[in-house]
Amino acid sequence: MARPILYHWEPNANSGKPIIALIEKGVDFESRYTDLLGFDQHKPEYLAVNPAGTIPVLVHGDAVLAESTEMGEYIDAAFDGPPLRPDSPEERWRMRWWGKFLDGYFGPSLSMIGWSVFVGPSVRNRDPEELRRNIERIPLKERRDAWTKAIYNTFSKEELAESLRRVLHGVRVFEEELGKRPYFAGTTYSLADINAFCMAYALPLMQAEHVNKEKTPNLVDWLRRVYARPAIARSFELGRTPMAARTIEVRKLIAEDGSDD
Amino acid sequence: MARPILYHWEPNANSGKPIIALIEKGVDFESRYTDLLGFDQHKPEYLAVNPAGTIPVLVHGDAVLAESTEMGEYIDAAFDGPPLRPDSPEERWRMRWWGKFLDGYFGPSLSMIGWSVFVGPSVRNRDPEELRRNIERIPLKERRDAWTKAIYNTFSKEELAESLRRVLHGVRVFEEELGKRPYFAGTTYSLADINAFCMAYALPLMQAEHVNKEKTPNLVDWLRRVYARPAIARSFELGRTPMAARTIEVRKLIAEDGSDD
Repeated sequence: MARPILYHWEPNANSGKPIIALIEKGVDFESRYTDLLGFDQHKPEYLAVNPAGTIPVLVHGDAVLAESTEMGEYIDAAFDGPPLRPDSPEERWRMRWWGKFLDGYFGPSLSMIGWSVFVGPSVRNRDPEELRRNIERIPLKERRDAWTKAIYNTFSKEELAESLRRVLHGVRVFEEELGKRPYFAGTTYSLADINAFCMAYALPLMQAEHVNKEKTPNLVDWLRRVYARPAIARSFELGRTPMAARTIEVRKLIAEDGSDD
Repeated sequence: MARPILYHWEPNANSGKPIIALIEKGVDFESRYTDLLGFDQHKPEYLAVNPAGTIPVLVHGDAVLAESTEMGEYIDAAFDGPPLRPDSPEERWRMRWWGKFLDGYFGPSLSMIGWSVFVGPSVRNRDPEELRRNIERIPLKERRDAWTKAIYNTFSKEELAESLRRVLHGVRVFEEELGKRPYFAGTTYSLADINAFCMAYALPLMQAEHVNKEKTPNLVDWLRRVYARPAIARSFELGRTPMAARTIEVRKLIAEDGSDD
């Protein structure tokens, strides 16, 4: 079959998941950087590939695959390379339980904060008429609403407070569960760790008061081990914003000798 | 391993998924009916099994499994019997794409309407002090908030209108995709059909104007084929409310000769 093509934005959040999975598997893929802040995902040439206008999308032969978590299972099943799913049905269930928790609960809350403090401010000062046109051509109403809120900064205080509450609850769940087993699904690194990492990689910087060596030692240990994987460093090379540079700060914060000075 | 135990409510929505999957696989399991409207799921004896207080839960040996969609994959992998997942990675991806769409988009919207027109009114007239105590002991804040809204009828008009919009959008997606292939994931009946059926089984009755032989022939054909499966009829036997009786009305509405009178 033809070389797979991955349309992706920065190597974090939803785009990070298939990038890391493909690199972990050793798959030779074509990377097509799709600039979320430039609204590339709503341009006609992208909508011809994915009419929903969401990123990432994996094109493999005739198959056009959306939804990054479900894409991860496809990548693991369709390509050779080290397995990214545990063997036992129970650990696979736990891997998918995390998928549900991360995509349905933790991710949307973290994402609302990210859209409020980063995505919105990044585009807000552009020509108002151009922004209006950009919003109008977003195909999914849910995404149109999210962009409108981000651009015009209309997330309510209550919404943002509830999102922060959920993020901090998620951090407590991570910390507790990582005290029971070394990786999210069980004894081995899996798609659950990739998904969690893509959301949690910057927490020691963004939520420094709550995520640090003293308060969340299990989470910090796990982050340190995932950061050490060669596939993670290689995935950062596909970034074009200061996102990847920020990970250097994170790694300093969680380095084992970081508190000895 | 010991005989699995399934804690479940009525054989629809989230509880219906593992009931149908276990029956389809021919698994001998112990059914423990857990009365959602009696708040059984928040009683100490249930919280000892599942501290989150959500239904359904499958107990299999030492494993205690929550989240009905993810539980379905476990059931298919852990027990013998006819496969409930397609073979190809692409069709499995599509099965999981539907899981995301049904659980993350369609289901919560349909559920809000169900809670507003059925669950809330079913419990609202009980002793206010008892209701208050029942709400207080719900472990998850999100579930506490949902019950509070259902009991005191505080879903806003906007919320309900948006939910209806999403449900009808979902119906259009079902109809379109079922025009491309006979089952949700592809050529064979799978967990995606079980999940969709558990949410869509009553649409010809509840949304008669939008789901009928004329407007959604593909969806109605598919419903008729799924209703004809022996496992579906057997799953209804585990119900204790008028839910199962209502399915007789639905079957009349979708019967092939139903419009010939």
